[in-house]
Amino acid sequence: MNEFALIANYFQRPCLDAAVLLGVGDDCAVLRVPPDEVLLVSTDLLVAGRHFPESTPPFDIGYKTLAVNLSDLAAMGARPLGVTLGLALPNVDPAWLEAFAAGFYTLAAEHAVCLVGGDTVKSPQLTLAVTVMGRANPAQILRRSSAQPGDWIAVTGTVGDAGLGLCSILEPNSAPASLSPADLTFLHSRLNRPSPRLAEGHRLAEFAHAAIDISDGLLQDLQHILTASGVGAVIEQAKIPLSPAAQAWFQADPTAQVLPLSAGDDYELLFTLKPQDWPQVDFPATVIGRIEAEPGLRVLDAEGQPLSLLPHGFDHFPPNRTSQP
Amino acid sequence: MNEFALIANYFQRPCLDAAVLLGVGDDCAVLRVPPDEVLLVSTDLLVAGRHFPESTPPFDIGYKTLAVNLSDLAAMGARPLGVTLGLALPNVDPAWLEAFAAGFYTLAAEHAVCLVGGDTVKSPQLTLAVTVMGRANPAQILRRSSAQPGDWIAVTGTVGDAGLGLCSILEPNSAPASLSPADLTFLHSRLNRPSPRLAEGHRLAEFAHAAIDISDGLLQDLQHILTASGVGAVIEQAKIPLSPAAQAWFQADPTAQVLPLSAGDDYELLFTLKPQDWPQVDFPATVIGRIEAEPGLRVLDAEGQPLSLLPHGFDHFPPNRTSQP
Repeated sequence: MNEFALIANYFQRPCLDAAVLLGVGDDCAVLRVPPDEVLLVSTDLLVAGRHFPESTPPFDIGYKTLAVNLSDLAAMGARPLGVTLGLALPNVDPAWLEAFAAGFYTLAAEHAVCLVGGDTVKSPQLTLAVTVMGRANPAQILRRSSAQPGDWIAVTGTVGDAGLGLCSILEPNSAPASLSPADLTFLHSRLNRPSPRLAEGHRLAEFAHAAIDISDGLLQDLQHILTASGVGAVIEQAKIPLSPAAQAWFQADPTAQVLPLSAGDDYELLFTLKPQDWPQVDFPATVIGRIEAEPGLRVLDAEGQPLSLLPHGFDHFPPNRTSQP
Repeated sequence: MNEFALIANYFQRPCLDAAVLLGVGDDCAVLRVPPDEVLLVSTDLLVAGRHFPESTPPFDIGYKTLAVNLSDLAAMGARPLGVTLGLALPNVDPAWLEAFAAGFYTLAAEHAVCLVGGDTVKSPQLTLAVTVMGRANPAQILRRSSAQPGDWIAVTGTVGDAGLGLCSILEPNSAPASLSPADLTFLHSRLNRPSPRLAEGHRLAEFAHAAIDISDGLLQDLQHILTASGVGAVIEQAKIPLSPAAQAWFQADPTAQVLPLSAGDDYELLFTLKPQDWPQVDFPATVIGRIEAEPGLRVLDAEGQPLSLLPHGFDHFPPNRTSQP
């Protein structure tokens, strides 16, 4: 199967979105942005063995590739307009491609977003490049730089599930024996099929101040908001919302409780808002701290004592891994 | 240097484009598309050793990465609005990054296009993912599907230079000894620093029928127009415009003369137009054939005889290279 047949077979499904004037098949896709809205763009690169374990089922790779990218739109409060996909493949494996495309299109259909273009190349390293275009009212865009002292800090859903799922895959012995198979399955699905919080982000854009999606870790991603906004924050560790599966894990292994502070891949939204706007939050979310004028990030344990050594999130080029000075 | 410092150091230059409301540094970039125009998007994935020789200087990799992507906009007659860059790097080498960024920004400045977002990840395989956003009047977009019987077929610039440049690098003995160092330098620069024909494409959008950029090879890319338009074509090989360097090469080695039909990487525009519109072409371009109603692609040699065996362009997944049936 050549490059063009591959695209036609797996990645050229009909698009019913009237905003897509021209999809896959020419030099460019052509999209219409509503005249009173602006264009938002985000790009992500996923490498097998780094962004997901090599053993990840291709359906989940397809699903997650789109999910992490849509999550960036959610973090700005935007709605999707179209997405492009670059596929660097070691070989053409029809079964793999079919499952990958099924995962990708399953999530795409859920959010009514069309694949409008892409590129396929041969490469020894499986790599996915995904770029999403979105649209938003320019007066309602959630930026990292708009957090205000006095804001509450909140998160959607639960935090730490994806990190625990990853632990249980990379080190199968790390999962407590008492954990039920259903709990393990839940944690794996949180890792492999994250839900981009598009509806929540779009709602938050009406009243919240700042937002980011948790991709690298709660503290690290919060730090981006603090730096961009020139503020500090206090987080109460005990308030971090945990799933029943995570609670079961921590009950059996309390030493793992620090993980939700640093683990990424949850793709929940971390946002700040005026306390009086909290009643407008009409979806699952939890207040975990507050923005303060004093710079720095302070985390209080269950006794209200500050944690002295804060765990760090994921960095693709940590100092001890780079081969150059 | 971590991922965030890397972006800040090399890829966060000021953007003076008023259409860019928010550039690098948040979850998404925010761009304004003029209300009477539409958005065009194209994405390319470049893998070291496949899209460019591993020995390519990093300045040229940066330049070419952007050039091939801008060329897709040129082929539709659009103008650039912003570009995102995904970098998968084996390591953080400041000298390499500085040269790569210099090449990328040199071409970006030439066409006044801003880098508005991106992603950096570690990967054993150097891979570049680039997505360009552009804008155009929706009534003036050059599509592959609009060629008409009776149209002339023309190309900008000269064809085959990049292919000869690549030959001379991959097989140094292939270049005739009579070729001057200046000719060789010219061919290498055509390979490594192609010029996206943005001004030409934008002008052609006023009157031409169909267009594509020559990335995979003249015949293969022309075939895309023929297939999309449901027409056929005749090409006169002797009319294909050659640079003085290519002419010198073919004088010493006539067997290589077939190469401009199949070699890619020139990023010239191949377009079709009504013969009476030819006087409007106010830039270097050459008529090489005509569109016919009868399907099929016929190439005539210097004596007017049809070539029986047509050379093929580049395919990333040729049948004998795939590892799966």
